[in-house]
Amino acid sequence: MHAARLTPVIDNSGDSIGPIDDALAAHVERALADYLAERHAGMAEAAPSFGSAVESLASFVLGGGKRLRPTFAWWAWRGAGGAGSGEQAHAVLRAVSALELIQACALVHDDLMDASAMRRGKPTVHVEFAARHRALRWLGEPERFGAAAAILLGDLALAWADDMFAGAGLEPVRQAAALSPWQAMRAEMLAGQYLDVLTQAKGDESAAAALSVARMKTAAYTVERPLHMGAALAGAPEHVIAALRGFGADIGVAFQLRDDLLGMFGDTDVTGKPAGDDLREGKRTLLMSVGLRRADAAGRHADAKVMRTALGDDALDVDAVERVRGLLVEVGAVAEVESRIADLADSAMSALRSVDLADPASAVLDGLAVTATKRTS
Amino acid sequence: MHAARLTPVIDNSGDSIGPIDDALAAHVERALADYLAERHAGMAEAAPSFGSAVESLASFVLGGGKRLRPTFAWWAWRGAGGAGSGEQAHAVLRAVSALELIQACALVHDDLMDASAMRRGKPTVHVEFAARHRALRWLGEPERFGAAAAILLGDLALAWADDMFAGAGLEPVRQAAALSPWQAMRAEMLAGQYLDVLTQAKGDESAAAALSVARMKTAAYTVERPLHMGAALAGAPEHVIAALRGFGADIGVAFQLRDDLLGMFGDTDVTGKPAGDDLREGKRTLLMSVGLRRADAAGRHADAKVMRTALGDDALDVDAVERVRGLLVEVGAVAEVESRIADLADSAMSALRSVDLADPASAVLDGLAVTATKRTS
Repeated sequence: MHAARLTPVIDNSGDSIGPIDDALAAHVERALADYLAERHAGMAEAAPSFGSAVESLASFVLGGGKRLRPTFAWWAWRGAGGAGSGEQAHAVLRAVSALELIQACALVHDDLMDASAMRRGKPTVHVEFAARHRALRWLGEPERFGAAAAILLGDLALAWADDMFAGAGLEPVRQAAALSPWQAMRAEMLAGQYLDVLTQAKGDESAAAALSVARMKTAAYTVERPLHMGAALAGAPEHVIAALRGFGADIGVAFQLRDDLLGMFGDTDVTGKPAGDDLREGKRTLLMSVGLRRADAAGRHADAKVMRTALGDDALDVDAVERVRGLLVEVGAVAEVESRIADLADSAMSALRSVDLADPASAVLDGLAVTATKRTS
Repeated sequence: MHAARLTPVIDNSGDSIGPIDDALAAHVERALADYLAERHAGMAEAAPSFGSAVESLASFVLGGGKRLRPTFAWWAWRGAGGAGSGEQAHAVLRAVSALELIQACALVHDDLMDASAMRRGKPTVHVEFAARHRALRWLGEPERFGAAAAILLGDLALAWADDMFAGAGLEPVRQAAALSPWQAMRAEMLAGQYLDVLTQAKGDESAAAALSVARMKTAAYTVERPLHMGAALAGAPEHVIAALRGFGADIGVAFQLRDDLLGMFGDTDVTGKPAGDDLREGKRTLLMSVGLRRADAAGRHADAKVMRTALGDDALDVDAVERVRGLLVEVGAVAEVESRIADLADSAMSALRSVDLADPASAVLDGLAVTATKRTS
């Protein structure tokens, strides 16, 4: 029905979108669009009504996102001496684009687990399918149908991520080298998600718990392992891989801390998410952990109580969110987290400067680190 | 905490469980136990609290099941001339054992989608984690925590299935040959699950819809593709692959029709599932489709209404289930489905006899077909 959605919005002819280095996100989107169109064609023939569900997944994958993971992986590949054009460069492009399918699984399943209604300004997958069920007056509960569709489409994205990686056309030695970070990354993503859910359930407000989630869910999965994978694809020596991983681990944690700040203070129009939702969901962020510790230490028990009561109150109104924001600034939690982000960025830069990377990878990774830690959305 | 669970219950020393051909299920379980123990060790160190969740997954994978998919795959490998012992045989054993991890994902997610409380006489994964949440008086809703754990552990099983297949140690040419059925199978399993949910939601009582679900969800995923994979691993010629796939498609549909009969008439003590649950869940089986068509055609409108009202009534009591059972027999639906199973079994046998398979694969596949279509649990 929506086959047009599978046509990439970008120019799909030859190399007309320019060199990969200059238009990486567009190249990633083209690789994903090509892969999804091929798999969709196979499915639509065998099971037409599943084909229509696959279109929703494709529309989700191609409908936006920062393409952060492929970007880190690509620049590690380039920095470790990998070619920017030619057959192997395109194979690597396909392999690192597959990271976006893992991310599609993570987001579709995460939105379902969090019962989030919106993502990138559109209804989430489970909400979209529940609405379809409701509109067509099907049998049973719309929410249950929506949940089933989101579970199955997330699974499909995860399976296709592996298929896209396995079929990228990598030279066997490169594929073998990238297998270890590829496998570790998927397990770490899932471990991070679980730790996140568990930390909330336990109401663990320790900094250690918040940092452990940030390390696993964001740092390892979003930055460190993609860099590891890109460097391994290029056959980089151990010390280069170690330096890039160190850089990635620091930048990744900083990225999560920035995300936490944006989740509390960000502009809804820019982030696409209602501010304060992390608070309503009871997310145990480092920001909240630091805020509570500092309020307790300063003997501000009433303020600490306000924060603890707000955390996980899904009916929290705008004024109450505003009050917690004010307290986080007042007790110095925002300043402490900002300072931690700055320290992590410094340490990341030292790691990056400890190795010689091929031009222009060093400058690009430097810029990515700045973007990731100073971004506003 | 429960590390003992990861120790296989079977003898783990050398080849003391005998040749693979003679103790296939035990060998599959050992391969799975070894793989899960290795991955668990990696995870338990990086994220101890996730390690405990992984133990639940391992316990689920190792806790029973017919090992049908590895069995079909193994005997296709053997029938197409693959070795029964030695290095490549063990690599193939590991590759086909990975099918059980796909199945673990399918079951864990399916139980969540169906809101099933029990599986193999034990609480399902989402119920187990909800109970853990409740017992420890954690924050938030126990059911939501249970659902998140089931989603993430199912995802982990799916990711590890690929990792186990990729790391089985297959010769590259064998692995490349098996990639196409491996990839098709995962997509078909998910397509079949979606069609199943969709058919129920639409209340589609046509035989075509029921057969389409049976072909995709059971035949392709459980029998045809595992056989295809095993034959491809052995480098079988096209006509052998085609014959085995034809055999598998027929046996697979027959297997699902038998499953539908057991779901309605099976002994709870033997099947481990309450009889009539398919009815309560509103599953549009071929059995119900035939029953409704025959009741309508015979002008038994009151009886047809009883059946249609029962379908999807989750409060249906034992007497009402008994009444539908009686009607399905009376209108001749049971006899028609039994006759269809017999026809499929005949056609499957013709396909099997059209090719020369290495001994004793032909006899074993013959026996598996009988077991799959005449089983009582």
